[in-house]
Amino acid sequence: MNSYQKIKYYQSEKKSLLCVGLDSDVNKLPDVFERKVSSLLDFNLEIINSTLEFASSYKINFAFYEQYGSEGLDVIKKTMEYLKDKSFVIADAKRGDIGNTSNAYAKSCFDYFGADAITVAPYMGYDSVEPFLKFSDKMTFILALTSNPGSADFQRLVFDGKPLFQHVIEKSISWGTIESTGFVTGATHPEDISKIRKIIPENYLLIPGVGTQGGDVQSLMRSNGNGPSIINVSRDIIYASNGKDFGASSSVRAKYYKELFAF
Amino acid sequence: MNSYQKIKYYQSEKKSLLCVGLDSDVNKLPDVFERKVSSLLDFNLEIINSTLEFASSYKINFAFYEQYGSEGLDVIKKTMEYLKDKSFVIADAKRGDIGNTSNAYAKSCFDYFGADAITVAPYMGYDSVEPFLKFSDKMTFILALTSNPGSADFQRLVFDGKPLFQHVIEKSISWGTIESTGFVTGATHPEDISKIRKIIPENYLLIPGVGTQGGDVQSLMRSNGNGPSIINVSRDIIYASNGKDFGASSSVRAKYYKELFAF
Repeated sequence: MNSYQKIKYYQSEKKSLLCVGLDSDVNKLPDVFERKVSSLLDFNLEIINSTLEFASSYKINFAFYEQYGSEGLDVIKKTMEYLKDKSFVIADAKRGDIGNTSNAYAKSCFDYFGADAITVAPYMGYDSVEPFLKFSDKMTFILALTSNPGSADFQRLVFDGKPLFQHVIEKSISWGTIESTGFVTGATHPEDISKIRKIIPENYLLIPGVGTQGGDVQSLMRSNGNGPSIINVSRDIIYASNGKDFGASSSVRAKYYKELFAF
Repeated sequence: MNSYQKIKYYQSEKKSLLCVGLDSDVNKLPDVFERKVSSLLDFNLEIINSTLEFASSYKINFAFYEQYGSEGLDVIKKTMEYLKDKSFVIADAKRGDIGNTSNAYAKSCFDYFGADAITVAPYMGYDSVEPFLKFSDKMTFILALTSNPGSADFQRLVFDGKPLFQHVIEKSISWGTIESTGFVTGATHPEDISKIRKIIPENYLLIPGVGTQGGDVQSLMRSNGNGPSIINVSRDIIYASNGKDFGASSSVRAKYYKELFAF
């Protein structure tokens, strides 16, 4: 089963588009945990056990672990091992560099960590993205229109009547296949998602920005229609409670979002 | 001494603009080494000892180490510890994400690894770059016009009469200070470097693309003039020989480039 078939399978089995973002941070752990890096693994496993019924995928935000160096990377590795054969896993790493360097990043995420998918930055163009797409049984999500305020700085600059993010999509869809190529489009831009859907009806969209970032879900669901998508919620699920009941609380929030994203 | 003063100091003391890029790869190590991750550290230390006389900075390409997971990160950490108080160190990581995530990447590179500078991708705009610039005693090198062929895909799209890379420079120079903000501009585009120098005569440029990537040094030196710059060479120095003499050979190449970049 390649990654594309895998996400289809889990989304259909769980009847859920929800992706739980493991933006786990030592300083935000529930009070029951000691403030140390190894606690992140215990926290992740409890969140996974509590949300697995409602989530079809998990996204691991590398930054939060990298800030603790090699010890943090061990937590990524063990979390991914735990998720193997249970769910679809996205390495949210936003990598991108010249060809031989991107190739090493691709090996890191796909071979070493065993991720099913990765997020990549398109600024450096074809030869920075192609080494990821060459892992054609995996999925590569290219940043198009991100959820943050700074997305307006460059992604919306208009060239030949089209914003940069549209150029990125139109140019890069030819670099891989529908199965290997997805795009990151923030839930905070529902109107643009309608337009993007007309260009790429079949490619997967990875949609962050719901929850703490404030993306409106009803507008999002309307504008995305039936297009294949993975909708991510991080903080609003994993930090649903600061107490002993954090697992149960994350489960309630995951169920809530699963139903909100019902398809 | 902040990072800006530090690079000025080492460049003046060594009379050299050369940065040695430690793109160290287990499969490319000289034959004297066992093909294992821990050999990377021995290799790096020998390369550093052999080139320190001629180089004012070192650039660590994170991808090459990340492909070996936590063991690779330990090599980065130990290499940076060895370089502390000996040279200026750039974390070549090309990071960039939404604010709270970029903040974690900044902590990783500056606090955990102790780098003096980092490379970041501008695609996500202000709030993805600002968390790095907030470490105002460090230096943040924003990708402008990269050395690879794919730089033509998006960086040269023209909006309002100016290419995207110029918009990136003109917009982001106001985000930090001259001391905290640098730009990555590939040696493969000497004509553009002349134009960039007119916009930012005082900011540091980090210039990769000399050596294996084929950037012409004389054109580069002419177009850059006396603008502050760090010129990186990676593979052509560190893999100068595959034999026991790899250290001595890297030293000869480093001396050659130092003199080529004489200022």
